[in-house]
Amino acid sequence: MTDDTLPTWRPGLARDAVGGFLAAAEDVPAEERVAVFDVDGTLWCEKPRYIQLDFFLAELQRAVASHPELEERSEYRALLAGDQAAIADIGLVPIAAALVELCEGMTPEEFEERVRGFFADARHGDRGVSMREMRYQPMLDLVRALRSKGFEVFLVTGGGTEFVRAVSRSLFGVPPEGVVGSQVGYELVRVDGRPQLRRTDELFGAVNEGAPKISNIQRLLGRRPIFAAGNSPGDREMLEYATSGRTPSLAILVEHDDAEREYAYRSVAGTFDSDEPIEATAERLGWTSVSMRDDWETVFAR
Amino acid sequence: MTDDTLPTWRPGLARDAVGGFLAAAEDVPAEERVAVFDVDGTLWCEKPRYIQLDFFLAELQRAVASHPELEERSEYRALLAGDQAAIADIGLVPIAAALVELCEGMTPEEFEERVRGFFADARHGDRGVSMREMRYQPMLDLVRALRSKGFEVFLVTGGGTEFVRAVSRSLFGVPPEGVVGSQVGYELVRVDGRPQLRRTDELFGAVNEGAPKISNIQRLLGRRPIFAAGNSPGDREMLEYATSGRTPSLAILVEHDDAEREYAYRSVAGTFDSDEPIEATAERLGWTSVSMRDDWETVFAR
Repeated sequence: MTDDTLPTWRPGLARDAVGGFLAAAEDVPAEERVAVFDVDGTLWCEKPRYIQLDFFLAELQRAVASHPELEERSEYRALLAGDQAAIADIGLVPIAAALVELCEGMTPEEFEERVRGFFADARHGDRGVSMREMRYQPMLDLVRALRSKGFEVFLVTGGGTEFVRAVSRSLFGVPPEGVVGSQVGYELVRVDGRPQLRRTDELFGAVNEGAPKISNIQRLLGRRPIFAAGNSPGDREMLEYATSGRTPSLAILVEHDDAEREYAYRSVAGTFDSDEPIEATAERLGWTSVSMRDDWETVFAR
Repeated sequence: MTDDTLPTWRPGLARDAVGGFLAAAEDVPAEERVAVFDVDGTLWCEKPRYIQLDFFLAELQRAVASHPELEERSEYRALLAGDQAAIADIGLVPIAAALVELCEGMTPEEFEERVRGFFADARHGDRGVSMREMRYQPMLDLVRALRSKGFEVFLVTGGGTEFVRAVSRSLFGVPPEGVVGSQVGYELVRVDGRPQLRRTDELFGAVNEGAPKISNIQRLLGRRPIFAAGNSPGDREMLEYATSGRTPSLAILVEHDDAEREYAYRSVAGTFDSDEPIEATAERLGWTSVSMRDDWETVFAR
């Protein structure tokens, strides 16, 4: 690895592990060079809350303006009030289901336009900058380094597939078909005889966290990764899967331990199948932990 | 269009329509240059029977050797006897479901290996050549012409996603994530603590014919095609969808009218939502019909 492979990573175990993997991967057949990245908290900041939640909150406020009765629903009331305790109490899956209902009837094109419009104006809750500037520069460098070795890079998110697809190319260089996330139902309707797809009010399959991440990687991509990066318990199975097949392989766990430059917290998102903290899983299985505080020279994209 | 754009197409309306579309597509934004192709009967020969049926028949014979009681099941009995009337009577969906059960418990890697092993030896039922030689050369030329104009080419098949993925790259230059077909369920099992995916005994979602082809294009690819090619009623909605969005767009219907060089038949596969013959839909909506007999200089790949 030359010094400019990971220019924003400090010398240390994490950078060495990546460098060793990149060198070893040169012997892997080209079509098996597959890398998957979680998105929230792995490629960009997920605090003070998921960017997708900001989007849905804007959609919800718009919907409530014309349908005030929506406020009576507990999921929406908690979201509008920003009541984190109530949101946690209700749980991610019912919240996600309620948010999916908000966009029922939209065509994929309309939804994409809404998301892009949102990103054009969206500012980070604490820093007031665009989400483009909340991407992690060291992870962008890692994506570029993997691609330079012939890796195909895919995004595997607990968030909505189409939400991430709307910006995946412009923010991460990943085309829509390279994004695997939670999915919604679609139905065909005819308008003046012409077929249109419209979003239904239901999730299609499981929320893409934990074991479903693996099934969905197979279903959508049909490729088995040998590199995976994540930051939460919802990434556990994906990281295990990437490191249980052929060698070489590498699993990266991003640790949010930099209160000064980012946030310091332990992610518990996606704690479905195990109570083991994800940091403990990483240690037990020999994954590469990346300390934002110690391993990264800079944090955010310029 | 230069003369060598479609070297195996004869001059005529079909070739002109393709040429006109390729020229017009130069004004389309690069990321909207999306082309989808049905597979059986569109990119390769589907007679005397689907190649995938040959694969499952081989799997079935292997299974019956160790589990003779399987022969008691009507779907399997009809397949083993080659009883086309009984197969038609049972219907495509129950037959597909019964075949999915045969591969229950396989990992994706095992299934892929089986399919590749099958293709290594498979010979066409009537001609005795490999399936590579049963691809249609004019369609391969069309795929190449589209790519030369910056199109991304995807395969959208009624067959099994993983069946086609196993050979999509070597036969059509399409990576696994570019294949959209019927899907099976997966479950995570642990072997010595390590996660493995295994096929369940059930289809996941609808068989990929008719309206589901559109939903699945959105779900897996997130792209709206402006070019689509098919040959059966199961392709109707996909061809309509491709030509109902932005212009320019083109829908191609391959007509099997060449008893001498291929087969002469009218496809009724996927007649779920309409009794209108697909040839009549093509005429009504102004699609481009391609006569294998008249429009193609040669039929099969060399």
